[in-house]
Amino acid sequence: MKFGGTSVANIDRIKAVALKIKSEVEKKNKIIAVVSAMSGVTNDLVSLVKQASETYESSEYDAVLSSGEQVTSALLSIALQSLGIKSRSWLGWQIPIITNDVHGNARIKEIKKENILKSLDNGFVTIVSGFQGISSKNRITTLGRGGSDTSAVALAAAFSADRCDIYTDVDGIYTTDPRIVKNAKKLDYITYEEMLELASQGAKVLHTRSVALAMKYSVKLRVLSSFQNLPGTTVVNEEHNMEKSEIIGIAHNPNEAKITISIVPDKPGQAALIFGALADKGINVDMIVQSSTIDNSSTDITFTIPENDLILAQGILKNIQNEIGFSQVTSDINVVKISIVGNAMRSQPGIAKTMFATLANNQINIHVISTSEIKISVLVSSDYTELAMRSLHTAFSLDKK
Amino acid sequence: MKFGGTSVANIDRIKAVALKIKSEVEKKNKIIAVVSAMSGVTNDLVSLVKQASETYESSEYDAVLSSGEQVTSALLSIALQSLGIKSRSWLGWQIPIITNDVHGNARIKEIKKENILKSLDNGFVTIVSGFQGISSKNRITTLGRGGSDTSAVALAAAFSADRCDIYTDVDGIYTTDPRIVKNAKKLDYITYEEMLELASQGAKVLHTRSVALAMKYSVKLRVLSSFQNLPGTTVVNEEHNMEKSEIIGIAHNPNEAKITISIVPDKPGQAALIFGALADKGINVDMIVQSSTIDNSSTDITFTIPENDLILAQGILKNIQNEIGFSQVTSDINVVKISIVGNAMRSQPGIAKTMFATLANNQINIHVISTSEIKISVLVSSDYTELAMRSLHTAFSLDKK
Repeated sequence: MKFGGTSVANIDRIKAVALKIKSEVEKKNKIIAVVSAMSGVTNDLVSLVKQASETYESSEYDAVLSSGEQVTSALLSIALQSLGIKSRSWLGWQIPIITNDVHGNARIKEIKKENILKSLDNGFVTIVSGFQGISSKNRITTLGRGGSDTSAVALAAAFSADRCDIYTDVDGIYTTDPRIVKNAKKLDYITYEEMLELASQGAKVLHTRSVALAMKYSVKLRVLSSFQNLPGTTVVNEEHNMEKSEIIGIAHNPNEAKITISIVPDKPGQAALIFGALADKGINVDMIVQSSTIDNSSTDITFTIPENDLILAQGILKNIQNEIGFSQVTSDINVVKISIVGNAMRSQPGIAKTMFATLANNQINIHVISTSEIKISVLVSSDYTELAMRSLHTAFSLDKK
Repeated sequence: MKFGGTSVANIDRIKAVALKIKSEVEKKNKIIAVVSAMSGVTNDLVSLVKQASETYESSEYDAVLSSGEQVTSALLSIALQSLGIKSRSWLGWQIPIITNDVHGNARIKEIKKENILKSLDNGFVTIVSGFQGISSKNRITTLGRGGSDTSAVALAAAFSADRCDIYTDVDGIYTTDPRIVKNAKKLDYITYEEMLELASQGAKVLHTRSVALAMKYSVKLRVLSSFQNLPGTTVVNEEHNMEKSEIIGIAHNPNEAKITISIVPDKPGQAALIFGALADKGINVDMIVQSSTIDNSSTDITFTIPENDLILAQGILKNIQNEIGFSQVTSDINVVKISIVGNAMRSQPGIAKTMFATLANNQINIHVISTSEIKISVLVSSDYTELAMRSLHTAFSLDKK
């Protein structure tokens, strides 16, 4: 059972979570519960770090941030004990959850099971501080924002849990963001791959890495409300998916920036130079298109990066401008990436046509397109976010689920 | 160097502390700095715990509370790094500082030196989260309120530090509380024993256990302001003490409750039964007087305990009333213990007389008296706190230092 920040936002919520765990204990289930920091706490801690210094070692950042989950796990354990349930809180280093030493965005390498197994066998509920682990250098690491989902799935995989229930402030996965499209419908089932695409294309409910991990280890994942008693959404293998519609959902990501590098001399290796320079600084390039002039002597390259990295990227490109010989760099943050996702796309070639026609009928200009086996993403002006999402939601019959 | 809660109350203060450490580094000193939680944080965390449940396992309490010092140590390390100083934060379990498993009030058993020595040798300032350690069961322990002083002195002893400087929000040890006696004077020197008596009789500047530890290991202790550049007070062995006045200081403790048990049948073992029952529940009895009736058939017993334990004590006494056969229990929280402290007391028998005469001249009635080699304490009505302290301060010539 994993409880996010809004589910443990204050002491009353923590007590409600304790009751939810109690009801599972009464069904004779052995429980590992993973908790986030109380909502707002992580942002406050980040702010303290940034006030202390604009630049800092990420190992110290991790020592500050991991304290939030430490507090919640012990408070939840206290709340459970007050209900007569045996429980104990565990920090990442106590289990231990061993990670690499990429502070701020560490990857789990191994979870030692012995301590927790003994504690579970002795009848204790295990409460784990999410988002954190320990490096081989004995320092606290964190798994990146949203990392508590990953902690929960990794623990579920390590202990071969029957279920991994992610409790959150919504009652499941929706066909799209209900704040933008009021006809958005809750899904009873979704496949791992679809969930992965939705998460990586901007749906916020689950951390992308946690879905990838769940898929790899076939962890039975459910997303459900911590406030209501509803069945939520179950993430399943494709063969188990009962929903046969073409498209399962629409994601949007407004935090993209578009960069265009104009008139790049068309020589081999130019793209490698540009994208290599960006990758060296840890900038993730997403959509890429390249267009040549008629005589093939030069090209324009357009791509997207996270909006937060724009200033850094502009600096990097300025540094290599002379070497590569391009004429100018322009950028636009007034863009949104809208993606349609669905396993059925593999076998139904008409989907792209429907998407582009729907956008064209609404006079929405497409800047960039990228596709995978089960998704199509388009970059459009962010002025059209709502229009694009609502018209696509209707065009793919998602309103009627 | 130890910095208390007010010295690291906010980011600006933490940056000021970093500058103070930098100036010591520039003198080629190797530094271990111990920090408390930012002021107010520990109280907030205690409040969260108590909201979660009135009763709780103290191991979970420790997991919550220790997070405050964790945050400060990493923030201070970041502030130092931004000044170009190599530093790293250390949690109790990382050093490790090994304690017994009396959670909430643990005692340090051993400090492993290897990790810190290596880090110091590599030129890093060591920033330690005060107040915390790790038990043999691998759980976080805390050392009791004010425990960061103890962390600092224990580290100074373990590493044979040349000095242990306790930075605080006052500029040293005073002859008495300057908020009550405006003529209170700062002391340049004080002996360990005098400091220990002052601390244990209510002076708040240093944690009593830290002074006892400093005395045991001859740690050269200084108390000084983190806000001003002043020499502070140095705690010294008796032979080094340059101040030869009779009395070095006056402490007061308003948090005492007086209990009187009336008409206790005078049989052997009655006192042991009463104080044994209180000790079993962890209640510290301080001053005790016993007075017999003329025919010696029964006695009244009067004693003091911490005001916070009064309700608990009343319950315990009610439970043993029939067994012991006393007639009634009365209590009074409107009392204050005032103590005069000074090494010279050993050789100067007139001091008690001066104290009692001063109080009598001011019409202050003494409820209970207790003495040690270097202190005399009296319990008086708390209405007379200021009058008693000011008149004693004058009577022992402390105004003129």
